[in-house]
Amino acid sequence: MNLKVVLVFLALSLITIFALAYVLLTSRGGSSLPPRCPSVFPHAQPWTHPGQSQLFADLSREELTAVMSFLTQKLGPDLVDAAQARPSDNCIFSVELQLPPKAAALAHLDRGGPPPAREALAIVFFGGQPQPNVTELVVGPLPQPSYMRDVTVQRHGGPLPYHRRPMLATESAQMWTHLKEVEFPKAPVFLASVFNYNGSTLAALHATPRGLRSGDRATWIALHHNISGVGIFLHPVGLELLLDHRALDPAHWAVQQVFYLGHYYADLGQLEWEFKAGRLDVVRVPLPLPDGASSLRSRVSPGPLPPLEISPQGSRYSVQGHLVESFLWTFAFGHGAFSGMRIFDVRFKGERVAYEVSVQECVSVYGADSPKTMMTRYLDSSYGLGRHSRGLVRGVDCPYQSTMVDTHVLVGQGAVQLLPGAVCIFEEAQGLPLRRHHNQLQSHFYGGLAGSALVVRSVSSVGNYDYIWDFVLHPNGALEGRVHATGYINTAFLSQGEESLLFGNRVGEQVLGAVHTHAFHFKLDLDVAGLKNWVVAEDVVFKPVAAPWSLEHQLQRPQLTRYQLVVTRRKEEESQSSSIYYQNDIWTATAAFADFINNETLLGEDLVAWVTASFLHIPHAEDVPNTVTLGNRVGFLLRPYNFFDEDPSIFSPGSVYFEKGQDAGLCSVNHVACIPHLTACVPDLPPFSYQDL
Amino acid sequence: MNLKVVLVFLALSLITIFALAYVLLTSRGGSSLPPRCPSVFPHAQPWTHPGQSQLFADLSREELTAVMSFLTQKLGPDLVDAAQARPSDNCIFSVELQLPPKAAALAHLDRGGPPPAREALAIVFFGGQPQPNVTELVVGPLPQPSYMRDVTVQRHGGPLPYHRRPMLATESAQMWTHLKEVEFPKAPVFLASVFNYNGSTLAALHATPRGLRSGDRATWIALHHNISGVGIFLHPVGLELLLDHRALDPAHWAVQQVFYLGHYYADLGQLEWEFKAGRLDVVRVPLPLPDGASSLRSRVSPGPLPPLEISPQGSRYSVQGHLVESFLWTFAFGHGAFSGMRIFDVRFKGERVAYEVSVQECVSVYGADSPKTMMTRYLDSSYGLGRHSRGLVRGVDCPYQSTMVDTHVLVGQGAVQLLPGAVCIFEEAQGLPLRRHHNQLQSHFYGGLAGSALVVRSVSSVGNYDYIWDFVLHPNGALEGRVHATGYINTAFLSQGEESLLFGNRVGEQVLGAVHTHAFHFKLDLDVAGLKNWVVAEDVVFKPVAAPWSLEHQLQRPQLTRYQLVVTRRKEEESQSSSIYYQNDIWTATAAFADFINNETLLGEDLVAWVTASFLHIPHAEDVPNTVTLGNRVGFLLRPYNFFDEDPSIFSPGSVYFEKGQDAGLCSVNHVACIPHLTACVPDLPPFSYQDL
Repeated sequence: MNLKVVLVFLALSLITIFALAYVLLTSRGGSSLPPRCPSVFPHAQPWTHPGQSQLFADLSREELTAVMSFLTQKLGPDLVDAAQARPSDNCIFSVELQLPPKAAALAHLDRGGPPPAREALAIVFFGGQPQPNVTELVVGPLPQPSYMRDVTVQRHGGPLPYHRRPMLATESAQMWTHLKEVEFPKAPVFLASVFNYNGSTLAALHATPRGLRSGDRATWIALHHNISGVGIFLHPVGLELLLDHRALDPAHWAVQQVFYLGHYYADLGQLEWEFKAGRLDVVRVPLPLPDGASSLRSRVSPGPLPPLEISPQGSRYSVQGHLVESFLWTFAFGHGAFSGMRIFDVRFKGERVAYEVSVQECVSVYGADSPKTMMTRYLDSSYGLGRHSRGLVRGVDCPYQSTMVDTHVLVGQGAVQLLPGAVCIFEEAQGLPLRRHHNQLQSHFYGGLAGSALVVRSVSSVGNYDYIWDFVLHPNGALEGRVHATGYINTAFLSQGEESLLFGNRVGEQVLGAVHTHAFHFKLDLDVAGLKNWVVAEDVVFKPVAAPWSLEHQLQRPQLTRYQLVVTRRKEEESQSSSIYYQNDIWTATAAFADFINNETLLGEDLVAWVTASFLHIPHAEDVPNTVTLGNRVGFLLRPYNFFDEDPSIFSPGSVYFEKGQDAGLCSVNHVACIPHLTACVPDLPPFSYQDL
Repeated sequence: MNLKVVLVFLALSLITIFALAYVLLTSRGGSSLPPRCPSVFPHAQPWTHPGQSQLFADLSREELTAVMSFLTQKLGPDLVDAAQARPSDNCIFSVELQLPPKAAALAHLDRGGPPPAREALAIVFFGGQPQPNVTELVVGPLPQPSYMRDVTVQRHGGPLPYHRRPMLATESAQMWTHLKEVEFPKAPVFLASVFNYNGSTLAALHATPRGLRSGDRATWIALHHNISGVGIFLHPVGLELLLDHRALDPAHWAVQQVFYLGHYYADLGQLEWEFKAGRLDVVRVPLPLPDGASSLRSRVSPGPLPPLEISPQGSRYSVQGHLVESFLWTFAFGHGAFSGMRIFDVRFKGERVAYEVSVQECVSVYGADSPKTMMTRYLDSSYGLGRHSRGLVRGVDCPYQSTMVDTHVLVGQGAVQLLPGAVCIFEEAQGLPLRRHHNQLQSHFYGGLAGSALVVRSVSSVGNYDYIWDFVLHPNGALEGRVHATGYINTAFLSQGEESLLFGNRVGEQVLGAVHTHAFHFKLDLDVAGLKNWVVAEDVVFKPVAAPWSLEHQLQRPQLTRYQLVVTRRKEEESQSSSIYYQNDIWTATAAFADFINNETLLGEDLVAWVTASFLHIPHAEDVPNTVTLGNRVGFLLRPYNFFDEDPSIFSPGSVYFEKGQDAGLCSVNHVACIPHLTACVPDLPPFSYQDL
């Protein structure tokens, strides 16, 4: 082969390979070898106010730390870290954002005024003072505090008695220590032979409120079996103790009564004595199995994935700090450490429709024939709905592609606590048209719009229950709030057969799922077309009427009638409907919500609607291991009603329309026909990670 | 440059290009260039009964054709195709599946008996007989009919009077012809100058019922503007006519009254005369614009796609004929041509929980101050909820990846009609955990399961409204029925200001959105743990009780009380709650549902629950152009209640569990962590097509 031939061959090969490489290279960006789907939102919308996010944002780690430093300096050397504080110590219980006054916030947002000072609200337990009390301090301005202001009297009409304070973890631990070291040794034989107690296989669950009158701090404590990984809530052993822990010195605490299988005893010593004498009826409860019915461990191997929500052209919203914006909606989100999730300055197409929409309280009231259960009225804000907004799991708690947002809290301990993945934001594919019509009368056409909505979610895991809070923003201008309940039910020991079953159902061998109610309280500070709002309720009656063209015949004709609904005028001092001080003193309401309701005029005022949504839960066998969300959902839906001239979703870029004679399979006619082409990409999903156990 | 250098350069280039090409070529089949996601369900489940599907399947094209041939042969040469039939003709109105008797079906399904004969129900209009009547014939056995049986008297207690027959399209067309050729010429000046009528720009909408007493067939007809592509329902012009069309010969039909702007006239001639004399107040209504508010045409260009539901590992259900099965559920689906969507033999993990769950009726009752609207009480089964289950659009009406199923109907015309895409089946990603718990008390663990459900859907587009019917099967054994209303509202002409607004809201310049109710009736023939069922309703009262350990204090303690709920024993002759003959004779109910309810015992019997779900709709401006589904939803949810020992969803292969100390980011610990890997494929989506306009 001569060189010329070799060269020609090489050149031809080169051309061939070049051509091949070119085909492959270009096809990378072409249709046969798909790219990753984009994941980035294109641009912020012009109606975003640059200062909006900061006004309502939860305090950052740096801000919380600055407030702690400032207070530590101001309040002196007696302060103890709340994580170690005894009842007789002084400690900072909590620090969270002090919401700005609405007038100042609106002056800034709407009229270019200066931003109101960013402030913190600190709650301090003064247990080490001659008159122990709880004090509320406003600290500002952030990020460099220079002042603090005692607002206790202004807000509560006087000092806050110390017995109303929420529990610290140290108090709870001290109570357990008291039982374990002082009480349990009075009944070693009974505990070991009836419950297989070995020093670590029991745990305490508390009833609240803690007593029967103002000033009480005496808690009914139910003992449950405690094995690693099981849901202890489903394992009552039947023994309950009433512990008085009002004294600031735990040495003075004492068990006042003991309840076992329907009978009351003076103390565990009496129980032990009667047991040993053979005079006590007992029900021996074996230790639960780590993989038993109360475990959430998977019983089967994983199978194929369920359908996933994927955004093939990238997400259609953005999250910057605490500000969320989509093509239609903007809002800021945050948490009250106690009151829970909230959104502010909610705007549809740039126009504010609500100033604040927030969770206020979450109440459950139980019934059963054991003292711990019949006493139980949980007011979960005192435990902290925001503080316990923790650990959302991609792909289970939220669609996998959601935006996860961390937050920080400072409650019950001196150090700032990171809550990773406390909030998720996503666009929800609803699998249902928001609207559609298939027209066959006169004209033949089809028009519709797939339903999708912007959702911000957090889940408060307060002990046994998990409350899933969603605020949902729809493309037709509707704003929805909804809460689903899941997690473990509370149970009582099933000892008395038929009579116990009046209070629920048997959900285990000796376990009663205790009937209870769930009630959720929301604040809706709506500003529809400005601050001045009216409230109108409409309903329909059927009125008999003679048919005008044939008077001897009667029709039933529906007709509206109009009447007023009670809501309240917005007042800065009525910013919350509940209080963390209720739980431990429900007999002396610190700020009574009922007082908000008076005969004030509601026409053309700045109005707040307070919404209660509730449901009854009769636990049944299928509540084991966990209550399902399905059917355990309540909420509210605010829909535009003659606010727009037409449904604003008609302007959605997702609207579909085609008519007879058109080829709906053409992408140019019907953009849904583009879907197979537009989804020819691989979803861009973040790796899974979880840091909150 | 010498040749050697050139050669070396070429060789190097060659190697580089080869290497590049190799990388590109190998990566085609490797992990970085992803495959198509699978789309095929693996296998049928062993509990599937091979004969199940056929029992309840809608009649096929071949079966419908065979019945028509048989009947044509039997009923003689007088038969006219219903598409051309006049009131005085004989015609076959409809043919659909005659459901098998339950006992025979169960003998076959459960005890290996022979399948019951497959039969059809034919409804025949005998208008050409001395005593015109409607006759119901059962025809069988399919696919080769050899017998027919007149069941009219057995089912209706006597002959069915001819005036109760539903409308044929020919009768409606003849009514319009009468107006256009006989009535409109009496008022040419009025119609042209007030409505811009040019011979084609008006259309008729009918009130039903058609009269005020049994035997009437006199319809209030509202005239609406009619321009191609607009929603005529939103364009009343204010003129309504009462046409008596009882006579079998249209030559005897006559307008009895005319209504215009609050006044009644003898006929259009009187209106014309008063108009010409200048004594008539008129409201001139311009023709609607093709792109105006009532159009569903998109107002903006398409934007990025919303999130889509994608099954990265293929669908987890299969559809074979009319049989659907998933890992958990099996059922057969079908349509009553009139009564609508229904499912049969619904089994959870192989065990039947319902024999039949079906739509029965869909009622709306209107109010307004015009005679057409105040008369309107639509009973949509008489128009045909199944017959109008048409044209689902992938990506709007159902998730894009849904399985679309065609069906056939034979109603109102002699030819079999294909309804392409009448049903869709899909697994719904709910974007919400079915259950979850984040445990922080004693043990630290997380367990949960993403919510997903199997959905079968059809949409009945009956004139102005579209009803979206879903039966939803959840992994915890719950069965849900739900209906969403969307489409155009009905309107009346807004002429009388404040008084008219008692009946709704202004939704256009001269348009009243008329207040109305929607009511939906469902049949639930549940067979939970066999045929013999009991009905128990539970509720809770709060009972004051003295605290047992402190008798001077009272608690409010919730407690169940139990009482019976009225349902009926299943009877083969009470198979449907409504009838297509009600609409045109609501004064003489052909089969009164109220008669089903008697004092029969409901303990341990085969029971049917009849569920009514309803809501009120006060139309408002945002109902233009279409009512949205959001908030316009009702339904029922059947949940297992002590049927299982625990929530069966714990056995779902999608369950997630991990605990402190485990790395949840590992695919082996937590299969949700595999999602980014398992979704590294391109969705396998069918091309869009649509054939139903």
